[in-house]
Parts: sequence; structure tokens; C-alpha cells
Amino acid sequence: MSLLRLGIPKGSLQEATLDLLSRAGWKVTLSSRSYVPAIDDAEINCLLVRAQEMPRYVESGALDAGITGHDWVVETHADVVELAEFLYAKQRLARVKWVLAVSEDSSIREPRDLEGAVIATEVVGITAEYLARHGVNARVEFSWGATEVKVPQLADAIVEVTETGSSLRANHLRILDTVLESSTVFIMNRKAAEDPAKREKADNLVLMLQGAIAAATRVGLMLNVRRDDLPTVLAVLPALKNPTISALSDSDWVAVNTIIEEAVVRQILPRLKAAKAQGIVEYPLNKIVL
Amino acid sequence: MSLLRLGIPKGSLQEATLDLLSRAGWKVTLSSRSYVPAIDDAEINCLLVRAQEMPRYVESGALDAGITGHDWVVETHADVVELAEFLYAKQRLARVKWVLAVSEDSSIREPRDLEGAVIATEVVGITAEYLARHGVNARVEFSWGATEVKVPQLADAIVEVTETGSSLRANHLRILDTVLESSTVFIMNRKAAEDPAKREKADNLVLMLQGAIAAATRVGLMLNVRRDDLPTVLAVLPALKNPTISALSDSDWVAVNTIIEEAVVRQILPRLKAAKAQGIVEYPLNKIVL
Amino acid sequence: MSLLRLGIPKGSLQEATLDLLSRAGWKVTLSSRSYVPAIDDAEINCLLVRAQEMPRYVESGALDAGITGHDWVVETHADVVELAEFLYAKQRLARVKWVLAVSEDSSIREPRDLEGAVIATEVVGITAEYLARHGVNARVEFSWGATEVKVPQLADAIVEVTETGSSLRANHLRILDTVLESSTVFIMNRKAAEDPAKREKADNLVLMLQGAIAAATRVGLMLNVRRDDLPTVLAVLPALKNPTISALSDSDWVAVNTIIEEAVVRQILPRLKAAKAQGIVEYPLNKIVL
Amino acid sequence: MSLLRLGIPKGSLQEATLDLLSRAGWKVTLSSRSYVPAIDDAEINCLLVRAQEMPRYVESGALDAGITGHDWVVETHADVVELAEFLYAKQRLARVKWVLAVSEDSSIREPRDLEGAVIATEVVGITAEYLARHGVNARVEFSWGATEVKVPQLADAIVEVTETGSSLRANHLRILDTVLESSTVFIMNRKAAEDPAKREKADNLVLMLQGAIAAATRVGLMLNVRRDDLPTVLAVLPALKNPTISALSDSDWVAVNTIIEEAVVRQILPRLKAAKAQGIVEYPLNKIVL
Amino acid sequence: MSLLRLGIPKGSLQEATLDLLSRAGWKVTLSSRSYVPAIDDAEINCLLVRAQEMPRYVESGALDAGITGHDWVVETHADVVELAEFLYAKQRLARVKWVLAVSEDSSIREPRDLEGAVIATEVVGITAEYLARHGVNARVEFSWGATEVKVPQLADAIVEVTETGSSLRANHLRILDTVLESSTVFIMNRKAAEDPAKREKADNLVLMLQGAIAAATRVGLMLNVRRDDLPTVLAVLPALKNPTISALSDSDWVAVNTIIEEAVVRQILPRLKAAKAQGIVEYPLNKIVL
Amino acid sequence: MSLLRLGIPKGSLQEATLDLLSRAGWKVTLSSRSYVPAIDDAEINCLLVRAQEMPRYVESGALDAGITGHDWVVETHADVVELAEFLYAKQRLARVKWVLAVSEDSSIREPRDLEGAVIATEVVGITAEYLARHGVNARVEFSWGATEVKVPQLADAIVEVTETGSSLRANHLRILDTVLESSTVFIMNRKAAEDPAKREKADNLVLMLQGAIAAATRVGLMLNVRRDDLPTVLAVLPALKNPTISALSDSDWVAVNTIIEEAVVRQILPRLKAAKAQGIVEYPLNKIVL
Repeated sequence: MSLLRLGIPKGSLQEATLDLLSRAGWKVTLSSRSYVPAIDDAEINCLLVRAQEMPRYVESGALDAGITGHDWVVETHADVVELAEFLYAKQRLARVKWVLAVSEDSSIREPRDLEGAVIATEVVGITAEYLARHGVNARVEFSWGATEVKVPQLADAIVEVTETGSSLRANHLRILDTVLESSTVFIMNRKAAEDPAKREKADNLVLMLQGAIAAATRVGLMLNVRRDDLPTVLAVLPALKNPTISALSDSDWVAVNTIIEEAVVRQILPRLKAAKAQGIVEYPLNKIVL
Repeated sequence: MSLLRLGIPKGSLQEATLDLLSRAGWKVTLSSRSYVPAIDDAEINCLLVRAQEMPRYVESGALDAGITGHDWVVETHADVVELAEFLYAKQRLARVKWVLAVSEDSSIREPRDLEGAVIATEVVGITAEYLARHGVNARVEFSWGATEVKVPQLADAIVEVTETGSSLRANHLRILDTVLESSTVFIMNRKAAEDPAKREKADNLVLMLQGAIAAATRVGLMLNVRRDDLPTVLAVLPALKNPTISALSDSDWVAVNTIIEEAVVRQILPRLKAAKAQGIVEYPLNKIVL
Repeated sequence: MSLLRLGIPKGSLQEATLDLLSRAGWKVTLSSRSYVPAIDDAEINCLLVRAQEMPRYVESGALDAGITGHDWVVETHADVVELAEFLYAKQRLARVKWVLAVSEDSSIREPRDLEGAVIATEVVGITAEYLARHGVNARVEFSWGATEVKVPQLADAIVEVTETGSSLRANHLRILDTVLESSTVFIMNRKAAEDPAKREKADNLVLMLQGAIAAATRVGLMLNVRRDDLPTVLAVLPALKNPTISALSDSDWVAVNTIIEEAVVRQILPRLKAAKAQGIVEYPLNKIVL
Repeated sequence: MSLLRLGIPKGSLQEATLDLLSRAGWKVTLSSRSYVPAIDDAEINCLLVRAQEMPRYVESGALDAGITGHDWVVETHADVVELAEFLYAKQRLARVKWVLAVSEDSSIREPRDLEGAVIATEVVGITAEYLARHGVNARVEFSWGATEVKVPQLADAIVEVTETGSSLRANHLRILDTVLESSTVFIMNRKAAEDPAKREKADNLVLMLQGAIAAATRVGLMLNVRRDDLPTVLAVLPALKNPTISALSDSDWVAVNTIIEEAVVRQILPRLKAAKAQGIVEYPLNKIVL
Repeated sequence: MSLLRLGIPKGSLQEATLDLLSRAGWKVTLSSRSYVPAIDDAEINCLLVRAQEMPRYVESGALDAGITGHDWVVETHADVVELAEFLYAKQRLARVKWVLAVSEDSSIREPRDLEGAVIATEVVGITAEYLARHGVNARVEFSWGATEVKVPQLADAIVEVTETGSSLRANHLRILDTVLESSTVFIMNRKAAEDPAKREKADNLVLMLQGAIAAATRVGLMLNVRRDDLPTVLAVLPALKNPTISALSDSDWVAVNTIIEEAVVRQILPRLKAAKAQGIVEYPLNKIVL
Repeated sequence: MSLLRLGIPKGSLQEATLDLLSRAGWKVTLSSRSYVPAIDDAEINCLLVRAQEMPRYVESGALDAGITGHDWVVETHADVVELAEFLYAKQRLARVKWVLAVSEDSSIREPRDLEGAVIATEVVGITAEYLARHGVNARVEFSWGATEVKVPQLADAIVEVTETGSSLRANHLRILDTVLESSTVFIMNRKAAEDPAKREKADNLVLMLQGAIAAATRVGLMLNVRRDDLPTVLAVLPALKNPTISALSDSDWVAVNTIIEEAVVRQILPRLKAAKAQGIVEYPLNKIVL
């Protein structure tokens, strides 16, 4: 039996990752002080590692695979395989942005105004490359955190990660530019990725994680419709995937079963009803593999 | 784009209403001090308003629509459109009652014994009309709340709202009569109700809210049955809605899919099994539009 | 109307039992100090009784039926009918074990080393019978609880119940032998079991409880598959129960709907995809009666 | 034994009042549903009554005494004796203010701009009298609560109570004027106040409550000082009350024991040290009667 | 260095005992699963033991000393030294009572009516001795707990422990007689009590525990009084212990410092003020050894 | 009025620091998202800054003063004034240690065994200087946290901070050496320290913080003693500070008031009683300036 050494991101991504793994079918149990969580799969060994360090350890082979942010792969220039992108972050099922921000009342209006300025950030490399692309000379200081508070007293500008922008607004910061978009990624050591057993295990993990993510924002919809009304009903349904249409005992009717985004149900349902669909039922899903 | 100004009831109905809106597909986010909640729908503006004042503001057009109690529409004589009745209250999916109650050991036995008495209540108008119907003269005092505690020390009788009667029992009160039954209603301003865009938006809201309420007490039931046994099985199922019967690969069998009240599952399931249904599966639902 | 007097186990099994009853369709409401819980079924009267005493009171007819541990039926030699076994305990959906354990560094290696020793346990009778079967003379002391802490200071060995062994490990105990395996059982008074109305009520309770237990570890799986690929897909599915195969409008395709153990989904799903299944959807279940 | 029927304010003042009574020496125990709390004093009967209704019931003699806001005595024109003022409100040990407020961007700048406007408030009487004093005609509407949210959509201005102004700021309101300052008061029925036994009981309650309030913001301070340095040390201490100066065994030294406001300790202590005080100790207090 | 093996009562007395030990100066730290708590005193080893079993293990010498209930010493006839009685139980600083109780509407009115009855109790021995003293023959059944619920369905009467009687009232039970009064006791093994080092350690523990219990219900009171008024003031103070009277710089005045029951402060303070005491200050205490 | 810009350490020291400031007399209020906390002192501006960055910003003058760990002053070689050392850390009132640790079963036994090894740490500079002092060549890698988990999989050794060693033990690490002892320090910018107003403010802060720390582990002790027994009693008291001895009315007696470490009360009190002290009372303290 092959063993996949998997890094779980400690810190801001940790809770969302453990929750997702649970929905994907793997129970990871933290003990209060240990960083070696138990997992209910004899083919996986887990290790809690900071997202920032994950690329370094996956590159070196200390870990076979890891879940981390794409930003840290870029920052560390680690040579790893990005097997999949997962659309979730600390709070939301969406990408995050590293933004260049200044104080609301700062005179800095665009990147070239940063000439000679002090910029505080956790991503010193990404920031330096961004400045180089814009031909700006500025001093980039490593920030251990609480970066938002540093302008204007401790820095002229910051490059900071944000999901919704609310922390920036609360600190009276103005966004100048997006430096990097990033999402959670599943990375793999180059050599491990060529080991068939490890690669298959990793592919299955990715498949199940993506199945759970897909189900988190979608619901199932079942309805009955007279054959004559079927085209009208189908025209209302989003084209994500062809719905399943099955015959009923009463041959004038068919049953339609489909998967749609939960966010559009409130628009679709009234139109389905108007299109003469009957017995419309929305039901929850655990996983989807289309 | 039309904008529907919607009143959400602040106070006892608030939590149940926000929960229901969430299940219907609208996320309403309260901020800690503001009474203008955010809603994830650009076509709706929300305002938290006391249920008591909702009819007044919907009548005046300050709000296009609102969710409140039927009792407050009656009490305020507001001229509004009641678009729909929703069977939920603070604690339960059911109507509430305004009851006339006295102390357990009071000598008052029926309404006419109230002649000359002091009655404390939050619904002064409804109570006065009730007394007039019974030809009784009594003094009705407005109560700011905590009405149950007022008999016998501060009043001879009260007219108070109750869901289960447990608060009345805990205060050693005896119910004499039901003054008014009430449930939650969706009300609309007369003029707004004639604006097609606002009316359609309101109708859709009502459709989805009723879909979520319907699903809250029901479950889906799937089962397989031999064609010969189908009549027996169908006889067991409640006649709420014709079940969906679909053909299976094995032409001797059909699949039955139906929606039933969760409360009767424990009676139906044993009888379905006795009727030779197989592979009986109960599954949860999010919304139902029959 | 017949009335079933049902004992609910107070203590370690209580929470799991009430949760299970709720999922089976019966809401049991505890009041803070009373041991007579309310149940939303006019045909049942509940009483909270310690699992240890349940067999005694079901045997005497003070209760018609009760949920308790098989271990206490054995310990009390109560003459009752065990209508069903339920695979759940305090923490897990599994059996528990009464084990003979000693201190990790004890010189006691096997049962016969217990000659002359002091053994602390809550199950004095079971332990005495175990020792008799092994021809060992030892002193068995009744323990009021906290039994794990007693070796080596207060006893030479203990017979204690365990679900996962973690409490034993935390107290540095070594397991010598399993004395008894036990699970939760539904027991009935012999006479009540012959009363047709009471027996039917009890049978229905058991059916629904087993339906809820079965659903707790299983999920529904729907998928579409080309008729040609059906044998390959079916070969992947576990043989728990024949899946339901239904015709689709497109006669080249069929829909497969089946129930599988949640624990194997992560192995099955990748293989279903490899077998060319499409639109694979996993959904949650409330109850299963196969 | 005489019995004092005492009203405890239900609602916003409730928690602070119960906490204060506890520190004053009376334990009041609420039961979950009853409004007749238990109190550990056979000479007092408690009743939970809304602050708004307290003056009405104390005036009528239904209660002998009550704790409520001075504002509600003014609003109801109740003829009661205000025995004492307590400097505490819901959140702070301070007075509250009823303020006239408008939307931040309203064109209303001073009271006379309110001519013809709609004003929402819980204190209709106080507001009407205020408007009359300013010779302004405006419509005053009774507000059931959530008053801050009503401007500008539902009212032009409001009269609302505030402790710190933060709720007004959060709702983007601008304060135009203070209509009434109010604090918590201990009121007594005129006739009960002339009953010697009831009056003595009430006076003792007031004495203890004021003793507890006084202690809440003060601390004890002990220090030793050489007789020669005493004048310098005493000059540093606030003149609230003469400190207690006691002789020590070593006749060159005296001990000083005094009570000071906790808020000034951080200013006084460094100056005491500079004045050569030694062994300075700050200790907590339960009650102070100077 | 001698080592005192001390039993801490696991269960209902546990929290109160650990809290008391903490106030007495010993921090006991429980780990989540172990029954061997850590204590910050190298001369003590702790063991968590059920109160019921404590006398047995202190008698046998497995423990040198233990904190348990006097009732369990009586029930087990254990031959131990009761070093001290502590007036605290699970909820209150007071004794508990084992009472004989029957259903409110039972025909049993006095002990002799129990002839032939079934009595459920956790204290089989104490109950049997009580019945023997009253010359009554009845069957005493061991109850594993939840004893209150057993009448009338499962037993005719119970002997159960109560602090305030509220659980008995909630179960509609009527108290017939008090079988035994009991309080928490510090017991010691006879031989260990003769070991001077162990005895001194135990005596010190008892002294500190009693100092903390004494302080829990008392407060310090300081006041200044003119020499002429001293006799009047002293007459008001309870005679628990002579107050400390010290000279002040101003020879016309003295300072009085004393300890009184917190419960009487609300009666004493008004009378001290009436007696012309000044600068009266109540302050909290940690420990008292009078 | 001068303004002191004060850095509060964000992160592990934050809660303990805010609690200490509160006990010292300054209320610091965090808002949920802002890093500029409010403080109830118009002469201080607060900023939440990571302890690691505090020395950098105090050195540069961006802050006048800050509370941080001595370790970070050493690590950053910042040129600041250490005004005071405070004996508190995250969990305890004591110093912390940076220790060199390896896996329990590692073959590394002493520092020189580290030749060629990989060492992970948050204090790269301190670790490099330590290795240089021992003449060892090793690779020091910056660790973003979760350092304990890195041996043996990701590093050969770590240098990590510890208060009690429990996290190291839980991760099965063995301590080889103490690299640095550190405690919390109050640091000041060199120039600000020469500004008399800022320096006085800082000195007062330090005085009050130390007064609060001193009181946290001490209690007050009052007792009466006959003059003849005074020498015996004084011999029992620790020599921390001369106790205050005052004359009583009864000239044969004196009162003794002193401050002692709470940890020794349990040893001192029995000996005071044996020395014939009477009316011994222990009371809590808020601040001590000896």
C-alpha cells in the first residue's frame, strides 16, 4: 500500500479545508496540541503546515502533496505541480485578491506615485516583481501581520490579501490595484506526481473535493411536465448540463431531474411554474460529479 | 429596474422570518446596530420595522410590502392588500391566538362577568371591539408588555397572544375565550400592488416563501413496487398530490416518488412495507411548489 | 387506544437515543427537572429510567418496553423479549465491549493470573460468571464509576465498558480480554409482547428506528449511464441491494438510483466516473427501509 | 411585619438593577417564565413591571415603590415621591438623554425647522411639551421601538434615548437638541411614603443601593507616611472625605486609609510616591457610606 | 518529605470542592480523561474517587484522607476519623437532608404506613436502619439514580437527598420525614491520623479550607466613630468577635474594623449610620481565621 | 498636552497585556476590525503592532513606546531604551524560554551534534548567534509558526519559545539547551525618552503596570496580636517589607497589616495561628507600590 503524505494548511484556510475534506468523505481529527492530525484513511498521512511554507516542503519532497494558496506558490517560486484549483478561501467560495492599498486620504493615486515609498506586505517577492513591472523603486518591508493598520503611520502603502474588502474599508484604506488573484490549489511534488499510486490517490482526493465544492452551491430540482410543455420548461433551465428526462407511467408526462445553482432558484422556480411544470421539488446535494 | 421596499418584522417574528427568507433563497444580513439590513437582491430594499407599525407604513406607502401579523392589520384598520398567509409564528409553524384570560382562581367565568373590570392588553382596539360585540362595559388599559403578570394585582383580566399556552399556565392564568386567531401575512400597499413589476416581485417572494414553508414539514419518499402491488401501495399514500410513477428497466416494477407530511411518515412507512413496497427511502427537501 | 409505556435510558445512552427517536419521527421533550418526558404520540408514555434498571422494570411490567444495553439484560438475568438490536452507543454507531483490563505495567498477563486479586466493576454478576468460566477465584467489588482510575492503587484489575478504548489508553490500562460485547437493544415485557396492539406499536417503533439508523451511515447516489456501459457501472456498485434502473427519454441512456454506505463513496465515485457514468449526484437520506 | 411591594423594571434597566440589588445585599431570583421574582427578604414582594408603566402603578398604590426612569415619571405626570436618584442606566453609571435627532444630511437645523414635520418617539407627551415650549407645530407619532431607523424614510425627526450616542451615529443621525436628561429613580407611593415601616424599609434599600453604587467606581487606598511628610501626602489626596489617619507603633510614622475614585488612581499614585508615601496598597470595596 | 494521599470527591461535590480548594490556596488541575488531578503542592497526591467509595478507601488505607459526605461514612460503617465538618454541598453552603418522600397524593402519611411497601434509594443501609428504628417491614431496592421519578409507578416511597427541596417539588413528591442530615466531611485513615507529618498536613488543609468557607459568607467593615459614640456603635455590631478598635491621629476619634456576616450588612449598616458612624466601608475577604 | 504613541502587542501577548492595562487603570477597547484601539486617556494613542515588529517601529520613532518581548529586541538589534521588565507572558506571570529542541528519539544529544543540520525557528538571528557561539555550522530556516511539528519530518531541530514545556512534550520533543530567557519589556524610543513629558507619562504607566503585577500574586493580611507575642508573630512573616503595626484601643494589643505572596499564605497562616495571632484576615488587593 502506498502512502500519500498530505499537507493541510494551518491558519486561515484550516477550518474551511477540514470542513471541505469532511464533506468530501475524509474525517480529519485534530488533537489539541499535536500538529499531526488523524485521518480515517490508512493511505494518507496528514501534517498541519502553514500555507506559506507548504510549497517549500512539497517541492523538497518532505510532503507528497499539499493544499495551499496559489499566491504562496508564486511567492516562493516553488517548482511543484498544481493539480487543481479549488474555489474557496477562508470565508467564501471564491478567489482572494492581493491588492495594493493606501490610506483613504493619501495623495498616492497610481502605482508610479509609489516611487521612494515604504510598502509593508507579507508577500515581499510578489510585491517586488509587481513594482519592477511598473518600473517603480520603493522599499518593501516584510510585515508579520496586522498590515492594514500600518498606513499611514508605519508605511505609505501595503499589499494585502482581501476576500470582501471589508477589513480594508474598516481601516479606511483605498485600493489602488490588484497585484495578484489567487485561489486555493492542490499541489504535488513533481516526483510523487509520477508515482502512479500516489497520483491516483491524489486524483481521487481532487475529484471528491471538487465534487463537494460543486455541491455546496447547487441543489437538485425535480419536476413533472406534460410532454407538450417540455420544450418550454427546458428553455427555462440553465444549460449547465442536460437534465435527466424520464418516462412516467402516464405516457403524457415526463419527469425532469436536474442540478442548478442555488442562487438562481428564486428566479427559475417562478418561471418553471409559469411554464406549467408541476410537483416542483428542490432537494439538497452532498456531491456532484458531472 | 424596479425596487421593492420590504418591511421585515423586528422583534418576536424576526428570527423566524430571517430563517424562512434564507431557506427561500434570500440572505438578509443584520449589522449590529443598523436597522437597514443588507439583502442579496438588488431589487429589494429591506427595513426592520416593528410588526405593530408595519400596517401603518405599508398603508402610507412608506413601504411597498411587509411581513407582519394579521392581528396588527386588524388592530390598526390599515387598508392594505393581504397577498398571502404564512403558517408560522415565533416558535411554531402554526397560528397564534389572542385570548382573554383571568387568574386561575378568579370569579370571572365568562365575558359578561367583565362588566366594570380593568383589562390590560397590547391590542386595545381589538379588545374594545370584542367587548362591544359582547355588550360589556370595561376599562381597557394599554400594556407595554409583561401583560401576563398583571392579573390579579394590576388588572382583572388580560387579552394576550399565545402560541402554546405555556406562558399563561406558568403564570397561573385561565383562558376564557379566544378573541382573535392570527397568522403571519404578507401585506402590500394598494398602489404598489397594481405596479406590475413590484407585484411580480412580491408574487415571486410569496411563491418561494411558501415553497420553503411547505418543505419544512414534508419529506420526499421513493420506493419500488411490483406493478401488481401498485394499487395497494397507492392506497396507503395520502392524497395530497398524485405520486410520480416511473417505469423501471425491469418492466414488472415501477418506481414511486412522492411528497408527504413528515408527521405521518411513522404511520405510512410500516403500511408501505406491509403493502410490499421495497427500497423505501425518505429524503429531505428544500422547497416544494406543487 | 392502547398505550405503550416506554422506558428511555437516562445517562450515557440518553442523548443518542433522543436524537435517534427524533430522526425516526418522534419528538421527545425533556423538562428540566422532570423524568417524565413529553412525546408527540398519544399512544406512548415515556419514562426516563437508568439503563441498569430498565430490564428489572420491563420484566416486572412496570414498563411495557424499553431501550437499554444488552449488557444490563445479561447482568440482571431479566426475563424479557429482545425485539431488536440497534447498532449505536454513546458516541458511535457500533457495539461496545466490556473488557478486563489491568495497569500497563501489571504482571497480570492472562485471566488465570487474577487468582486472589481484587477486581472493580459495575457489572459484578457478569464478571463473576466470567471468572467462574475461567475457574478463577477473585474478589469482585462493585464500583460506582470512575473505575478506570482504580488500578493499580485501589484494585488489581477492572472490568469496564469501552467504545474506542481511548479512555483506557489515557489511564494507561492494558486490555487482557473481552468479557462481553453489547449493543443497544429494544426489550419488551413478555406479556405486553403478546398484546397485539402493543406489539404492533413496538414493531413500528423498531422499524422506524432501524430506518433512521440505516440512513445515518448511507447516502443516495443517482447517475446516468449509456445502456452499453451499464454492466460496467453495475459491477462497481456494492451488492447491498439492487439499484433502481429507470428508462430515460433518450432510450440509449438509463438512470441508476441506489443507496450506498457513505464510507465507501470516496472509493466508488472515481470508479463510477472511470466506468463512464455521468451526472453523478450524491444526496442525503432520512430513513431507509430496504 | 410590614411588606413593601417593590416594582423592578423589566427590560433595558432590568439586568443593571438586579446586579445592583445583588451588590447591595438582596438576591433576586428570576424564574424562566414568571414575572414574580423571588427575593431573599421576607419584608419585600417583587414584581417585574415595564419602566414605562411603573409610575402609573406606584401612583395608584398597586405597588408601594419602584425603580424606574425619571423620564417615565415626567411622561406619565404620575404623582409619586422620588426618594432618590441613582446614577446608572442600561450600560453605564451615568444619566441618559432624550435627544431630538434628524438624518445627518437633513435640512432641519434647529427646533423651529420642525414646523409641520412628523416626529416619531416613545415619549409622545414629553415631545409635545418640548414642541409647545418652542412654539412649533408638528405631528408626534408613537413609536413602538426601532425609532432610529425611521428617519428619513418613515419620519422627519425622532426623539430618542441615548447613553453614548453610538446607536445614533451608527444610524447616521445628527443630534439637534437635548429634550430631557434622565436617570434611574426610586419612586414611592405618596401614602406608602407616610407609613413609617414602609418608609424605613425604602430608606434602607436606598441607602444600601447608594452604598453599592458609590463603591462601584471607588477603591480603598492605604499607605504609610512619615509624620513630617504627611502634609505633602494629604495635599495630593482628593478632598472627597477626610482620610483616616492612625498612629503606628513607630511614632514617627502614621498610616493613611482613604477612599478615592478609581479613575484618578493612575494620577494620584505616582504623586503619592513622589511625596514619599510608602507601602501604598489599593484594595477593592463592596459598599461605601460616607 | 511526607506525602498525603488525598481523595477528591468525583461527581456532585466535585466542582464545589475544587473551587473551595482554589480559594484555600491549592490549585487542582483536571486533565480531560485522567482521574489523577495535578495539585500545586509536592506534599499531596490527589485521586478523584466517588464520594460513595471514599470511606471504603480511606478506611483501607488506600488513601490517607478524603473529602466526602458524612452520609457515606454512615452508610458504609467505615471506621475513619472525621477531622472536620465543612458546611457546603453541591449548590449551597449548608447541610443536605436525606428525606423519606412519597407521591403528593399518596395515602402514606407516616413511616408506619410503609409496612410492606417498596422503597427505592441509593442508601440501602441507612434506610434499612431507619425502618428498623420505626419497627417497619418494607422492601428497600437499590436505585442507580433518578430516584425521584420512581414514585408512584416504580416504587411506593423513596429515600433521597435534597438541598432545597425543589427537585422533590418538581416531581410532585411530599416529604414524610428526615432520615439523616449530612454535610461534607474531611475524613482520615486512623493510622495516617497518628502519623505526625500527615496529621499536620491534614490539619493545615482543614484550617485553610475552613478559613475560605468562613470568608465566603462574610465581609470586612471599617468605620470611624467619635469616642463618645463608640458604645452605641459597638452595640449595633454582632458579637461574633470583638472588633479591632484603633486610635486615630485625631484623638477624639477611633477606627473600628470588624468582620460580619454578609447577610446582615443590610440590617447593620443603616443602624451604624444612625449611631453616627462615619466613613463606613465594606470590603471583600479571602480567608478568615478568628 | 503631550501625546504618547504606544504600541500594544498584537497576538500572543495581546490578551494578557490588555488585561494588565485594565487592572493598572487604563481601559483599552478593541473594535472588531480596526487595529487602532480606543483608550480612555487623552494623553495616549494606541496602535496594535506585532511584538516582532515593535522594536523596529519604536526605534524609528513611528511609536514613542511599546510593550513587547525582550527576545524581539535582541533579534532585531533595535536601539531602544528598555524602561522596565514585566514578569508576565501569554499564560503565566513568569519568563519564557527559547529552547533548542529535537525529537525525543533523535541521536542529537548536544549543540555540537547539530553540525550540518537544518534548524527551523522564528528567531533566525538569535539562533545564528547561538550557533556561532558554539562554533557549529548549521542551516537555519525561517519558520512561519507550527514549528514544533517540523521535527523530524521537516527539520532536524528547532529553536522555539515555551512557557511550561507542555506543547513540546505533547509533540514528543526533547529540550537540549536554553538559547535565551525573555520576558515582556516596556521599550521607549531614545529621543522620546528624553522628552520630559513623554518620559513622565511612560514612567507613570510603568509604575501602575508594576503595581498591578505586584498585586496579582499578593494578598493583604491583617491580624491582631498581644504585644508580648509580637516578636514571635513577626518572625513568621516573610521579610518582603516591614509590616504596618498600629496601636489598638486596648494597649496590650497591636494590629499588624502586611502584604504577602498568595502562594505562601497556606504555609504562613497555620504558623501565625500557632504564634497566637488572632482575627487573621486575608483580603484581595488591586495594586501595590511598596
